[in-house]
Amino acid sequence: MDSALVSVPVIAFGEQLSKDTDGALTTVETLASTAICGIIHSIIGGQPLLIVGVAEPTIIMYTYIYNFAKNQPNLGEKMFLPWAGWVCIWTAVLLFLMAMFNAAVILNRFTRFAGELFGMLITVLFMQEAIKGMLGEFSAPEGEDQSQLIFQFQWLYVNGLLGIIFSMGVLYTSLASRDARSSLYGTGWQRSLIADYGVPMMVILWTTLSYALPSKIPSGVPRRLFTPLPWEPKSLQHWTVANDLFSVPPAYIFLAIVPAVMVAGLYFFDHSVASQMAQQKEFNLKNPSAYHYDILILSLTTLICGLLGIPPSNGVLPQSPMHTRSLAILKRQLLRKKMVQTAKDGMMNNATSSEVYGKMQEVFINMDSGGDSVSANKELKELKDAIIPEGDGAGTVPEVFDPEKHVDAYLPVRVNEQRISNLLQSLLVAGCIGVTPLIQRIPTSVLWGYFAYMSIDSVPGNQFWERIQLLFITPQRRYKVLEGAHASFMETVPFDKIYTFTLFQLFYLMLVFGMTWIPVAGILFPLLFFFLVVIRQYFIPKFFDPRHLRELDAAEYEELEGFTPVPSECEDESVHSREAQPEYASEILEEFTTHRGELKRRNSSFRSNSLHKLNSVKMAREFSRAPSQAPRFMEALEE
Amino acid sequence: MDSALVSVPVIAFGEQLSKDTDGALTTVETLASTAICGIIHSIIGGQPLLIVGVAEPTIIMYTYIYNFAKNQPNLGEKMFLPWAGWVCIWTAVLLFLMAMFNAAVILNRFTRFAGELFGMLITVLFMQEAIKGMLGEFSAPEGEDQSQLIFQFQWLYVNGLLGIIFSMGVLYTSLASRDARSSLYGTGWQRSLIADYGVPMMVILWTTLSYALPSKIPSGVPRRLFTPLPWEPKSLQHWTVANDLFSVPPAYIFLAIVPAVMVAGLYFFDHSVASQMAQQKEFNLKNPSAYHYDILILSLTTLICGLLGIPPSNGVLPQSPMHTRSLAILKRQLLRKKMVQTAKDGMMNNATSSEVYGKMQEVFINMDSGGDSVSANKELKELKDAIIPEGDGAGTVPEVFDPEKHVDAYLPVRVNEQRISNLLQSLLVAGCIGVTPLIQRIPTSVLWGYFAYMSIDSVPGNQFWERIQLLFITPQRRYKVLEGAHASFMETVPFDKIYTFTLFQLFYLMLVFGMTWIPVAGILFPLLFFFLVVIRQYFIPKFFDPRHLRELDAAEYEELEGFTPVPSECEDESVHSREAQPEYASEILEEFTTHRGELKRRNSSFRSNSLHKLNSVKMAREFSRAPSQAPRFMEALEE
Repeated sequence: MDSALVSVPVIAFGEQLSKDTDGALTTVETLASTAICGIIHSIIGGQPLLIVGVAEPTIIMYTYIYNFAKNQPNLGEKMFLPWAGWVCIWTAVLLFLMAMFNAAVILNRFTRFAGELFGMLITVLFMQEAIKGMLGEFSAPEGEDQSQLIFQFQWLYVNGLLGIIFSMGVLYTSLASRDARSSLYGTGWQRSLIADYGVPMMVILWTTLSYALPSKIPSGVPRRLFTPLPWEPKSLQHWTVANDLFSVPPAYIFLAIVPAVMVAGLYFFDHSVASQMAQQKEFNLKNPSAYHYDILILSLTTLICGLLGIPPSNGVLPQSPMHTRSLAILKRQLLRKKMVQTAKDGMMNNATSSEVYGKMQEVFINMDSGGDSVSANKELKELKDAIIPEGDGAGTVPEVFDPEKHVDAYLPVRVNEQRISNLLQSLLVAGCIGVTPLIQRIPTSVLWGYFAYMSIDSVPGNQFWERIQLLFITPQRRYKVLEGAHASFMETVPFDKIYTFTLFQLFYLMLVFGMTWIPVAGILFPLLFFFLVVIRQYFIPKFFDPRHLRELDAAEYEELEGFTPVPSECEDESVHSREAQPEYASEILEEFTTHRGELKRRNSSFRSNSLHKLNSVKMAREFSRAPSQAPRFMEALEE
Repeated sequence: MDSALVSVPVIAFGEQLSKDTDGALTTVETLASTAICGIIHSIIGGQPLLIVGVAEPTIIMYTYIYNFAKNQPNLGEKMFLPWAGWVCIWTAVLLFLMAMFNAAVILNRFTRFAGELFGMLITVLFMQEAIKGMLGEFSAPEGEDQSQLIFQFQWLYVNGLLGIIFSMGVLYTSLASRDARSSLYGTGWQRSLIADYGVPMMVILWTTLSYALPSKIPSGVPRRLFTPLPWEPKSLQHWTVANDLFSVPPAYIFLAIVPAVMVAGLYFFDHSVASQMAQQKEFNLKNPSAYHYDILILSLTTLICGLLGIPPSNGVLPQSPMHTRSLAILKRQLLRKKMVQTAKDGMMNNATSSEVYGKMQEVFINMDSGGDSVSANKELKELKDAIIPEGDGAGTVPEVFDPEKHVDAYLPVRVNEQRISNLLQSLLVAGCIGVTPLIQRIPTSVLWGYFAYMSIDSVPGNQFWERIQLLFITPQRRYKVLEGAHASFMETVPFDKIYTFTLFQLFYLMLVFGMTWIPVAGILFPLLFFFLVVIRQYFIPKFFDPRHLRELDAAEYEELEGFTPVPSECEDESVHSREAQPEYASEILEEFTTHRGELKRRNSSFRSNSLHKLNSVKMAREFSRAPSQAPRFMEALEE
């Protein structure tokens, strides 16, 4: 099922690419790339939890490459793919060099400022794509026979109106499905199903609805995805692109280095961030990270994609941490079941409390594969305290100890680390290529709604977005922000400094966004990001107090929690634990991760309600309360 | 501006009536009735805070009357209005008798069970109207020339799709505008403006948008309101209906008693409830209620409307309490300003604390017109305690006393009681008749969205609705309901009893709703409500424990607050008072009233946060904590 979460965006990006390259590359190629790169990464990748796929940076760069090639008399549409192949070859070389020469050192100079700006740029580009697509439904696509019935004004208008209804429908129902897990209705598995797979389900639902229209409407309204079938000649010609590589004029072979530098920079950044998100400290992974080795694998897969004439894949962001999270939920359910059973058995046999705890610890170590009793003892300390409140544990387990409740509350996060889930989902994406006839049934407007959804879904947790909102709040209402969960900079940095900082960031965002609109030179927009290193290091400190800058630009994990006047301490903890069903595990994890699977650090309700549920989180809190260090974005990259 | 809140529903009901009576009565007549009855009521009515207007019960009954008359060879469409005039005459007689013979005694037998059922029926009827209207946009209206361009399939379909977009747009934006007052953005008056007048503003906004469509669309798409201009012959003919009264065959004159009984019953019920809602205890009104006298006035206005050939008006529900509330906010702002000024002056002159309090009390009594110092002393007790914490008040005011903050927190609710606001808004509604050409510009689909809004807006606070939702919550999730604000029956009544009670109520609702569908006999549907008295008194007690019944059927003011595990006591009160702007007054009132202006009784966040802000509410809470009495719906009716 996880493959659905990967396939839908890949299909959407495929449609965008198809529109932007006049059909030279379509959904078939984006799916193929995602499947091939995914299979390779899942088998030989250093961090098999990382999910790869064709994403927005690839689409943007390929659009520039296509537009450039199309207008060059020596290349033209015919030589687009071989030239893109050269871009991939150079990108692979650059990524290889980056992996060799420890490029992570440079990346550490990118502070949160740059990461947020990049995230917001993607958000804006998604929304732009949604709006462009929706408006496009009102006019006939280029290169089509304009005299067709469906391109007469009234049917174009019907197509456009249906487009608004379908895309808004997908957007609203998808946004609503996100909150299904905490809904009051339905059983646990129904809620989980909708919360996890609501978005692909809504795509299917609205596609089905699009077939319920009156039969008087001419076929072709609403407009549906155009993608050639993988076994048609148009799709098959890509696979022999390698033969044409040397038909590219030598000058252009070397010119391909320019886009390659941009692609390599973007990929390196994106891949590393996705990888870091998939192995956040709080997930307590056993296997170490392998950033440089994974860049090497990325270099290999980019090369292969280039030679096959398909767009390359890199680490994708919402899906990678979501993958780890779902494996954490799975592992938690397994661990929980076994440990509760062990505790119950021990209590039935009137074992002493230290015996019961010993058995439970044993189960934990066995299932955790590789832990020792010292670290296990440390991690299970609160559970131990609950079983053996005092003394040497010679007595029986205290009556207040409830295995279900306490195990649920004190079980540390563990992830089911393996390569199978990634491999399986890559194979399923490959299977999607076989069902292209079904994909062709999706109305294009459903995808525009999906783009709008991705755009809106990507803003929560972005501090830059929060600060932009702050610009529009009158001074009289600021107390409201302070009453809710908020970052500490709200209290420690003067508002005019926050404003200036945010306005500068906003100005820079518009600069980058404006640059993406420039036809050919736009391809250089990543340079503006690389340039941020200099700006951040030499220019910004001249205008801001270093203490303020540290607060505003702190990496998220360094951010301090602001004072929230919610009296968490006197709350009756037991009320919240009264329901300890297995599916509750996923709800707890939902509470402290964003919709995109990233860990939230400043959710006060989580702090107050679920704190004691997961030890690791408590540790994280202690950590975040420690004096903040100098900003180090992606510190974990340094191996 | 308040007239906008009355006019929009009256326009919507006018359109519904016009559709259901084939244009015999239109928006011109509903506006005229609202204006005439409003002017009479505002001048000689017993409770001038009560707002009257043409509402759903009138529309339903007039639709039955029209359909009956149309199919009678001796009446026909031509004699519809004179016959309806006879219905009004009989209704007036019945209302007169009811006022004389103290009919309120019977009404006391109607428990919450009946009130909720009626409320839910209106909700369902509104939604039915919205859906019927929206689907109707896809087909040509009856009686129109079907060969017109705009009734060709493609343009009908465009009209229907635009209908979906406009009605959904009105619905979503109106629902969003309700929450503007507590929004983070905008200044105080902007937020108040949107929260108070968001719905009429959205009607105007979407009407304006409907003029931004491409000019290639034939005129007539989207369909707009059809209402004749008041100075056209079609409108003018109504006013002489009195001349035709005796052209009605005598048998039909007496048959008119049947609908008259139903109309009189509905009006009596609706008018009294609206009146009660406008003068709830918590508003601390100075002038006494006048239920029977107001029924007499209603009898008079019904007679006048019948003779003029326009549908009669009665007390309307969301608007009446909203009217009182806005007057309470106004009074509060005036009182607050004057008292804070007095306190500040006293403190500046170093007056003793008892002098400062004395001056403030004097201002309060003067502005309250008619209070004496004993009752004022009682109501201002908490304020007094803040100014004179201990001793005889010979010292100066304590430093912790902050006039702005404490006056805001301890000022009792006062309403600006007068006849002017009601008269003014009635005159403005009359003015709306003059701008019929503007009303004709509203797309019909905007009104369907407005009906959907009214439907959704009417459910919060209806315990029946809460119990229906409960039917769909799995037993495992009930703890979530108990965690939030909930009524005490959730804890004291077994769930299977709640289920049975709710299922029976739901069955009865479907019965009544089904009855409204029956062409002629449907007019008798109010009988099912009258029958409820018997069912409630003799039938239901056989199946339910009286204690359970008392909990489930308690009048809202008798309902006990359930235990909510929110630790209100240890909250830092001062944080919430830190912002004490004048517009904050309306926000406080918003917190403890529903969108429909009714007082909420079980909102725990209000209980915990704003409790100390308004004395009267604290008293209400004490009252609700007292042992509950036998259910008495509308006890206050007994004068």
